Amino acid sequence: MSECLVNGKPENSVPADDRGLLYGDHLFETIAFVDGRAPLWPLHMARLTQDAGRLLLPAPDPELLAAECTRVAGSQPRCVVRLTLTRGSSGRAYQPPATPQPRRIIQRRAWPQRLAAQRQRGLKLHTSSVRLASSAQLAGIKHGNRLEQVLAAEYARRAGVDEAIMLDQRGRPLEAIAGNLVLIIDGQALTPQKRHAGVDGVGLQALGEWLRQAPQEATLEVDDLRQADEVMVINSVAGIRPVRMLDDRALAIGPVCRRWQRLWDELFECDD
Amino acid sequence: MSECLVNGKPENSVPADDRGLLYGDHLFETIAFVDGRAPLWPLHMARLTQDAGRLLLPAPDPELLAAECTRVAGSQPRCVVRLTLTRGSSGRAYQPPATPQPRRIIQRRAWPQRLAAQRQRGLKLHTSSVRLASSAQLAGIKHGNRLEQVLAAEYARRAGVDEAIMLDQRGRPLEAIAGNLVLIIDGQALTPQKRHAGVDGVGLQALGEWLRQAPQEATLEVDDLRQADEVMVINSVAGIRPVRMLDDRALAIGPVCRRWQRLWDELFECDD
Repeated sequence: MSECLVNGKPENSVPADDRGLLYGDHLFETIAFVDGRAPLWPLHMARLTQDAGRLLLPAPDPELLAAECTRVAGSQPRCVVRLTLTRGSSGRAYQPPATPQPRRIIQRRAWPQRLAAQRQRGLKLHTSSVRLASSAQLAGIKHGNRLEQVLAAEYARRAGVDEAIMLDQRGRPLEAIAGNLVLIIDGQALTPQKRHAGVDGVGLQALGEWLRQAPQEATLEVDDLRQADEVMVINSVAGIRPVRMLDDRALAIGPVCRRWQRLWDELFECDD
Repeated sequence: MSECLVNGKPENSVPADDRGLLYGDHLFETIAFVDGRAPLWPLHMARLTQDAGRLLLPAPDPELLAAECTRVAGSQPRCVVRLTLTRGSSGRAYQPPATPQPRRIIQRRAWPQRLAAQRQRGLKLHTSSVRLASSAQLAGIKHGNRLEQVLAAEYARRAGVDEAIMLDQRGRPLEAIAGNLVLIIDGQALTPQKRHAGVDGVGLQALGEWLRQAPQEATLEVDDLRQADEVMVINSVAGIRPVRMLDDRALAIGPVCRRWQRLWDELFECDD
């Protein structure tokens, strides 16, 4: 059982001319595996296929990817598989080759520590000074250009917080560093509109499917975060984590969060 | 003589967990070498050092980098050395490790074809549909998040043009895909202001030093491109290339471009 496959072969390295390395020219999915199965697999594949079209990459082969990801996951009770699909090697500087040969890099990672405690007791967040750039071409895509998240995560580490609220260029809350936001305001579930920045998250999509009603996209302001009854961070691996502290303000962990967490656990643990 | 060094060792591959690959978490410099020397070396090192500070990376060691880049360049009459400085491996997803161990990847590339013809006869450009995102944190930095340039280069390839004008989110011309812009208007040299997007180019810096007067930064509009007496694309490897066609309009190749080209050639060929 290999921890890393590159184009189907056990390898722990990638050619130095891979465009993923040179330019962040890739897509990736971070996929939760439980007992060898990925409960959110169809959503990951749907996003990857859509994003490949937007980045002018050839459509991926979901069956091949399923075989390789399952092989890397092995029989671990829980693990995370990172699937990276780069535009491969060659091309002329920024310009891709006429017929790119994408490279598949599939890596196993340990299940993150502390998630259970974070789901139970909640997250401490600050508002990041790093703002998300606006780009109609790249908004929503889970691509490999992640310096904003890297910088925000480094500042969060230095500040001793678990996560951060990232604002867009106009100062509106858009998402967390590694997760989408859901606010409960007057009984309504709202999530920031992501037409110009942010990632179209698989965890949030899954929740919407399970509830048969996705949280409603809205243009939200910083004040909405302060006035919300509940604030949650949703991520396909970490699940649903409530925010218990945002900057200098304590938030309550409310009943909607607890109900959704039970739903998430049921669907992840015993849906076969 | 090796064509690729990774942390000083001849290697053609990089560990699959390198953060440069995972997140575009790196800086790079593309450096012209002529007869084993890099005429613009001090400017490349000054930018790399400044950018490392802005990305919270440890300061690079210019002497070590000079030794390694010179070794990779060898005695080629002309070649390009790409120096990539990643944040290395490890960390927790987006979050870098507390003490990153940067990785140096130094690669030799052939001198680009067609540059002499492009400098003489000029470039054909269109206006790209891909717009540059605004980010105060990342503007000016030569970092590894280059999907906008990759997409713009792919659309340019499909359209059969040599380069493209990239607009910012407000529709103002900001730079070319791989080079800064200089416009000559009423005898004055102007370059788009890059406070919110774009790369602080070494070629443009060099020109400013040699002229003892940098082209003046200005907020430029699309109409300024159409009304300019001359438009040029400046890049530290390609030098100064005039624009002869922009979308549907032919531009004259003027005397300022020719004078600067002679200056560039003198300084690159015989300044020792």
